[in-house]
Amino acid sequence: MDNKKKVTAITSMDEDFAQWYTDIVKKADLAAYSNVKGFMIIRPYGYAMWELMQGALDKMFKDLGHENICMPMLIPESLLNIEKDHVEGFAPEAAWVTFGGSEKLEERYCIRPTSETLFCDHFKDVVHSWRDLPLLYNQWVSVVRWEKTTRPFLRSREFLWQEGHTLHATYEEAEQETIQMLNVYAKFCKEFLAIPVVQGKKSDKEKFAGAEATYTIEALMHDGKALQSGTSHFFGDGFSKAFDVTFTDKNNQLVYPFQTSWGVTTRLIGAVIMTHGDDNGLVIPPYIAPTQVMIVPVAQHKPGVLDKAQEVLEQLKGCCRVKMNASDNSPGWKFAEYEMKGVPIRLELGPRDIENGVCILSRRDTGEKITVELTELDKVIPALLKEIHENLYNRALERRRAMTYTAVDLEEMKDIAANKPGFIRAMWCGDEACEVQLKEEAEVTSRCMPFEDQEQVAETCVCCGKPAKKLVYWGKAY
Amino acid sequence: MDNKKKVTAITSMDEDFAQWYTDIVKKADLAAYSNVKGFMIIRPYGYAMWELMQGALDKMFKDLGHENICMPMLIPESLLNIEKDHVEGFAPEAAWVTFGGSEKLEERYCIRPTSETLFCDHFKDVVHSWRDLPLLYNQWVSVVRWEKTTRPFLRSREFLWQEGHTLHATYEEAEQETIQMLNVYAKFCKEFLAIPVVQGKKSDKEKFAGAEATYTIEALMHDGKALQSGTSHFFGDGFSKAFDVTFTDKNNQLVYPFQTSWGVTTRLIGAVIMTHGDDNGLVIPPYIAPTQVMIVPVAQHKPGVLDKAQEVLEQLKGCCRVKMNASDNSPGWKFAEYEMKGVPIRLELGPRDIENGVCILSRRDTGEKITVELTELDKVIPALLKEIHENLYNRALERRRAMTYTAVDLEEMKDIAANKPGFIRAMWCGDEACEVQLKEEAEVTSRCMPFEDQEQVAETCVCCGKPAKKLVYWGKAY
Repeated sequence: MDNKKKVTAITSMDEDFAQWYTDIVKKADLAAYSNVKGFMIIRPYGYAMWELMQGALDKMFKDLGHENICMPMLIPESLLNIEKDHVEGFAPEAAWVTFGGSEKLEERYCIRPTSETLFCDHFKDVVHSWRDLPLLYNQWVSVVRWEKTTRPFLRSREFLWQEGHTLHATYEEAEQETIQMLNVYAKFCKEFLAIPVVQGKKSDKEKFAGAEATYTIEALMHDGKALQSGTSHFFGDGFSKAFDVTFTDKNNQLVYPFQTSWGVTTRLIGAVIMTHGDDNGLVIPPYIAPTQVMIVPVAQHKPGVLDKAQEVLEQLKGCCRVKMNASDNSPGWKFAEYEMKGVPIRLELGPRDIENGVCILSRRDTGEKITVELTELDKVIPALLKEIHENLYNRALERRRAMTYTAVDLEEMKDIAANKPGFIRAMWCGDEACEVQLKEEAEVTSRCMPFEDQEQVAETCVCCGKPAKKLVYWGKAY
Repeated sequence: MDNKKKVTAITSMDEDFAQWYTDIVKKADLAAYSNVKGFMIIRPYGYAMWELMQGALDKMFKDLGHENICMPMLIPESLLNIEKDHVEGFAPEAAWVTFGGSEKLEERYCIRPTSETLFCDHFKDVVHSWRDLPLLYNQWVSVVRWEKTTRPFLRSREFLWQEGHTLHATYEEAEQETIQMLNVYAKFCKEFLAIPVVQGKKSDKEKFAGAEATYTIEALMHDGKALQSGTSHFFGDGFSKAFDVTFTDKNNQLVYPFQTSWGVTTRLIGAVIMTHGDDNGLVIPPYIAPTQVMIVPVAQHKPGVLDKAQEVLEQLKGCCRVKMNASDNSPGWKFAEYEMKGVPIRLELGPRDIENGVCILSRRDTGEKITVELTELDKVIPALLKEIHENLYNRALERRRAMTYTAVDLEEMKDIAANKPGFIRAMWCGDEACEVQLKEEAEVTSRCMPFEDQEQVAETCVCCGKPAKKLVYWGKAY
């Protein structure tokens, strides 16, 4: 009955990180729990963030020659069953459709958990000659995986994503595509989400079901846990062989093409929350902020204030995503509300400011306030948005650096894992048994073998003491 | 092994309209049949058309204050069952999920055939006061309906659509929204698809399951059949009551809000094919054409031709969606290929043209060729695209006028229905029995009671001879 809702405080990050996260999701109105167990409702504010992410990624994909396509939502069981590792990985969490209306289906269908099998089936129909290659496809859809425990954006039974699926004439070209798309993801995270990521290769244990190799971008959250934020898979010709996809090469030989797939999901919204958020709520990096500047008139009942605020609103429409809140809530309420919602810049404008031809810009990232001439706003705001973006990125990078440790033996690993949240750099012999042991004893998993950091921090495996050559980033993960 | 594929001719429209349609879908590469029965694959060219449609519609929705949201894909059976008419309409064609992994679910879920029930369930959580209204939501998703017979774009087990769902404080406001969105659809069809539509109200027999009233836009296809191309539903407070959605009004009374929903689907791609296509293939209206201008260099092996063509390509990028085909296929092959694909303008450029500083523009809609100075292209092309758009619209409107007949009694109705494909204007008493009889005897259904045409063409019902006041457009429909 009263829209003067209280902006209630949220749980502090240090007190209960999980609750802090949930509070932000709800109070910044990003998502709501639905009465469909394990499924979330993405609310308009969260969806608007997703649309901005989509727009940026879609352009990057298309600039590299990828085309969007739309495959069926359902996969016949016999199709899912064709590639052995793949079905083992996905069948346990598949949602099965068994009835169409009142008729029992002759064959069950699962709702796509991922679409490699459907793409292979289609590739078979459309690829004949080397001239047909490469095929560079992508689709924006939702997928279903019947998870036991769920959290909004991080793990839910349905999530939105894009899945790229490409087919190439040569091993090298496919491998190059896999890395190229991983780089696209890293660039996107840096330039739009202000999130620094570690790029690297997954161990065999952690790779995608059916892949020859999986590459990942790993981001470090505020609580020191790692979030796998995007993956790019190289399939070699494994799927092609399983699905009998062939083409005639330049030498007139019938051969198997090479394949990749790569995806990012609405989980990235979770990454944004847990990388930039603070105890006052969400902090949205400017380039994916649905509202970049929120105008809050002060003493708006006084003559001329609303008119001037409206004028500033119109003035700014060309240079940023701007809104005004002229409701009868108090400025203090509005300040708290848009802090909670993570709007990068708040623009305050009161009678005295108007007299002086200025307004106050308040930064969400630092809380800093600056007084700016109204005539300068079109120049100042884009520059300030850029500065905020860079500050968010640098802050996150600094934090990651400060939370990255090195361990040379099991005791040290266990000690760090127990006491210092973050990435742990440590050598690995390549044996899966050591990964299992580290999971059991230190509660960490191998996040990736990073591309950029290949320092040999020790001669021997952190776990078994055997000779080791690979540096791995380990961590607790979402 | 050879990309010099033949552009094979398609079945003529007059010979076999259904086959002509299927030929275009396949040969213009809009969609492919999948091995998932009744599901189609929307190929990149078809999907690119859909993206352009989406972009235009999404902007129109947002300009009117609507926000995008994303609801779960699955509906628990108990939720679907709440509104009686609704479940009767949709349960017979629902796809039921009964297993999550290897576990049988306690309750079945259906894949959304439409999402009224989910929205109502959510509205209940988010609406409390009159200050929370209106809620103006939309989502872009796919839905599943287990159809028996399917055709790409026109009727398939899965289709893409948008579904708008809005909630209002008053009956009048909700009714106004219903009509407003119908008008948006009509405007979109006219301004982007170049399709004239008849706007009107559905009979009770033809309305949406659970609606108080359904409004429709009906388009006439080349073969004289009607295509229901978009619908807008007014629910009154029926769903609110069934789902117990209430709010406190300005008088502090707990009352039920009023609701609407409205949607258009990928069926619109079918409408484009069957409105504008001809025996040479697809004809895409310019504003939704993925490629508006295709440059075909002539004698491209001659020095300077490809360089100049490339220059023209760069020149035109600012004023239209333009591509060049410089492959080693013959110009003749390319001409036929882009006719098939319905590209609005073909730009031919050969050595002699270059000498003269001109090129040839060939219109897909009329076949007309004009010679244009290269320096004038940036002005000529946008104007020509507009002209083509208008010509397509006017041509379709003319055709619809020519194929709209009037019948005053049953014999005349049967005669027209049997011999003259098109809309039949005829009076109706309002009795469902007459609709049933007309369906049986004349094989027509009531398409709508049009807003714009309310002429009283007779005193009595075309079927039963009782007094009649309502003019109905009847027709055979997809």
